[in-house]
Amino acid sequence: MTTPLVGHLDPDFLVIMNETQDMLRQVFGTATPLTFPISATGMAGMETCLVNLIEPGDKVVVCIQGFFGQRLVEVAGRAGATVTKIERPWGDVFDVEQIREVLSKVRPKFLAIVHAETSTGAWQPIEELGKLCHEFDSLLVVDTVTALGCVPLKVDAWGIDATYSCSQKGLSCPPGLSPISFSTRAQEAIARRKTKVQSWYFDITLLSRYWDAERFYHHTAPITMIYALREGLRLVLEEGLEVRWARHLRHHRALKAGLSALGLSYSAVEGHQLPQLNAVRIPAGVDDLTVRRKLLADFGIEIGGGLGDFKGKVWRIGLMGHNSRANCVFQVLGALEQCLLAQGLKVAPGAGVAAANRFYAENY
Amino acid sequence: MTTPLVGHLDPDFLVIMNETQDMLRQVFGTATPLTFPISATGMAGMETCLVNLIEPGDKVVVCIQGFFGQRLVEVAGRAGATVTKIERPWGDVFDVEQIREVLSKVRPKFLAIVHAETSTGAWQPIEELGKLCHEFDSLLVVDTVTALGCVPLKVDAWGIDATYSCSQKGLSCPPGLSPISFSTRAQEAIARRKTKVQSWYFDITLLSRYWDAERFYHHTAPITMIYALREGLRLVLEEGLEVRWARHLRHHRALKAGLSALGLSYSAVEGHQLPQLNAVRIPAGVDDLTVRRKLLADFGIEIGGGLGDFKGKVWRIGLMGHNSRANCVFQVLGALEQCLLAQGLKVAPGAGVAAANRFYAENY
Repeated sequence: MTTPLVGHLDPDFLVIMNETQDMLRQVFGTATPLTFPISATGMAGMETCLVNLIEPGDKVVVCIQGFFGQRLVEVAGRAGATVTKIERPWGDVFDVEQIREVLSKVRPKFLAIVHAETSTGAWQPIEELGKLCHEFDSLLVVDTVTALGCVPLKVDAWGIDATYSCSQKGLSCPPGLSPISFSTRAQEAIARRKTKVQSWYFDITLLSRYWDAERFYHHTAPITMIYALREGLRLVLEEGLEVRWARHLRHHRALKAGLSALGLSYSAVEGHQLPQLNAVRIPAGVDDLTVRRKLLADFGIEIGGGLGDFKGKVWRIGLMGHNSRANCVFQVLGALEQCLLAQGLKVAPGAGVAAANRFYAENY
Repeated sequence: MTTPLVGHLDPDFLVIMNETQDMLRQVFGTATPLTFPISATGMAGMETCLVNLIEPGDKVVVCIQGFFGQRLVEVAGRAGATVTKIERPWGDVFDVEQIREVLSKVRPKFLAIVHAETSTGAWQPIEELGKLCHEFDSLLVVDTVTALGCVPLKVDAWGIDATYSCSQKGLSCPPGLSPISFSTRAQEAIARRKTKVQSWYFDITLLSRYWDAERFYHHTAPITMIYALREGLRLVLEEGLEVRWARHLRHHRALKAGLSALGLSYSAVEGHQLPQLNAVRIPAGVDDLTVRRKLLADFGIEIGGGLGDFKGKVWRIGLMGHNSRANCVFQVLGALEQCLLAQGLKVAPGAGVAAANRFYAENY
């Protein structure tokens, strides 16, 4: 980001834009031209996907298994959609049959679902959903904010029609951009709109005229943020996607072994726990804020508090991108041990780190 | 921006947010609490002001004297407003009487007008418009994208009810944020809405709950961009607003003397030419792109081409913020002289810089 600023139509910047798009397509697993970052944060990507696909009165189905599913309902409602909600308890995931049943009844314009639910740490299987949606002539919209760069994501192979992510999680850039991608099928749906997209800033058809060869002026691109994204993507591809996904899984398993040894259990159902977002239940009698403040003040470690229904009940420990590594696992286990002891919990000294190291030794 | 990243609810970051808001209020000339940057570029600020104030069917009046007035019409239309347009020829400005006449007929929810029209270089007087709008129970919305930090702007004293700007012009930060401010009167109008704001990302009421003491999570703030904005604002206040405005005027006048000596005339009407954006007509027989490419390739100087009606007809030379200084005046005059000579124009050698220096000597 310290690279000197140039204009948003400078020939050198146009090269950087092309490189950024090429790498973003590889990371998303797509060949679709309409792949670029929105000049705003991840939630703007959500709004971009929804407002471009929704015309007032359109029927859509939203899957809710946490805070960000609720967000999807809110944003879709403001765009004029008639929303059918389907729900799972927080921490759970949907199975294909539950979704099939609703799709066959509602036959919506699209189904929207969160791949990696940041509020619960639940890892929603997505692989089969594109095919399923297309059976019912519905599009598939997937929130990959916490997924991209951490867990397998194959936009084209899985038939995802619109997806949005962010810069600051799996890509380890500063927050400020929202990478998006629209399939040909989604673009065709947008081309059939009878009304203008309600948002001018998020109008993907106007934006694409700046990102494609036309280079039509829409708004002044956030140059330094795009420098950052380009470098973040380059590092992802230098490591390799498969290697990166495996790395996230490895350190998650080590952390989980350590957290279990400290007596902490995950809030997401077994078998569907995100490697990059380890959400654990706060033990009875432990004060949420005291622990999180001590972690930050004494150790410079920030873990997330609970959102929505999980406020005060859950801690969320990120091991994302650069931070998915043994050093971070050891740090957070050591610091948490000290915090839990200070809260009067009985913890065998060094139990967390010992369990993590046992895991590493036995499995790698 | 190289300051290490912290979380968007980190206690240290909350201090930075408060400092940024305090300084932004000083630079806008307002005491209104609802003053903070939108996490997106300047055009997002336009959309934020319009969608928060407009409910479907609301009558609004938009003043068009260039490209960005047309943008206001487009964005207001997408928000469901019934738009009355009033127009002046490109390069001209509105007088109070023309606006009064339309306000008295339409009695709109608000009047929207561009303070510094980036496409024409015209400097619209704003001082009297707040009082005028309030006579008709209308609000005043002002685009200060190219004005803030360059020319006098007094949001409270002039009765401006909603305004938006950008980070990359008068504040000399990278592009990526849009500072906005809403008056108490505007907030009351928003509180009286019967419908939700169509955009969730730009909903000022939700956003204000993150920027005020509640610190309610809305989206992840673009931390590094806010670091940049804070430093940009600090530098503006270190210099002093009056001193900064006078500096912009001084170097504009020197540049204008030089450009006149090179035979170039301004596209905005006399007496209403922006100091920070010097838009000049491209002389007959001169090739727009050849000159702009040579300026960039040989001298590293980017000047703007024409927008909309002025495409191919006008060059736009920015002297904004840090770049409003004699060194930049000399550079661009010297480089332009060489480009114009290469295009076969007759220019007295050194005439531009000589005229600028004569101006500096006689006036300062």
